[in-house]
Amino acid sequence: MQTTTWSATRPGEIEGGKPDRADAAITFIGRIRTPFATPSDCPHRGKPDGPVCRIEVDEPWRPALHGIEAGSTMQVLYWMHLARRDLLVQAPKGRPAPLGTFALRSPNRPNPIASSEVVVVEVTAEGVLVRGLDCVDGTPLVDLKPVRGVTDVP
Amino acid sequence: MQTTTWSATRPGEIEGGKPDRADAAITFIGRIRTPFATPSDCPHRGKPDGPVCRIEVDEPWRPALHGIEAGSTMQVLYWMHLARRDLLVQAPKGRPAPLGTFALRSPNRPNPIASSEVVVVEVTAEGVLVRGLDCVDGTPLVDLKPVRGVTDVP
Repeated sequence: MQTTTWSATRPGEIEGGKPDRADAAITFIGRIRTPFATPSDCPHRGKPDGPVCRIEVDEPWRPALHGIEAGSTMQVLYWMHLARRDLLVQAPKGRPAPLGTFALRSPNRPNPIASSEVVVVEVTAEGVLVRGLDCVDGTPLVDLKPVRGVTDVP
Repeated sequence: MQTTTWSATRPGEIEGGKPDRADAAITFIGRIRTPFATPSDCPHRGKPDGPVCRIEVDEPWRPALHGIEAGSTMQVLYWMHLARRDLLVQAPKGRPAPLGTFALRSPNRPNPIASSEVVVVEVTAEGVLVRGLDCVDGTPLVDLKPVRGVTDVP
């Protein structure tokens, strides 16, 4: 149990064991720069007209940016490095009763991977500028992909 | 470079190094049972009227299923265990020119995590039955969450 306010266990919540097995390894491919310095500064959920944030892709993976277009909608996967991994049932503020972690989009989950839809404002040599994120500054980047695949039927 | 047909490198594709750093560990929380035995059997993309697939959640995480409702739309994250992690530029069939991995939804990517939207058909004691998946039978499960958070404004 952690003790900072935003991650303390609330009445009705159920803690399980933390995952103690590494079945697969994630390599962070960059990081996300946002105006939100702490979890308390983050909006509840990103909006298409939110502030421009910078997705920095590390050098080895930059060739993989080829073909991303400004104005397109993309899906960003990132690692919520400040989240708890042991909560099975959670009591979000404003809810009448606790709910299971898989019935919630809370950052606290066994594998704390977030998925956000963003709109690309600009593609740069080092990454992309986007709107629609709600994560804390410095969040590790896991993946970036178009919401609709190029070979999908529209 | 792998040699099976579905994962062979095609003309115009660019291979980079494979990720060789474990920045974070994923614990598989279950597996996905589908009628698709091999990658060649998988549809291009799951459909809401596709076959019913079974998402099996391992015992320690089952309390986290509490509150999932039949008929709701959920997001499933899973690990594409058969994918290549070294491709930076790829040449999908039917495209005039190669594109960067981050401009594609190809399974081959540095962190091979897929995200699918599914419709819940039934919640069982061991997991959920859903429609909308396109992955191979036995795919490891990473996360399960509602598409819309319970505290979101509709």
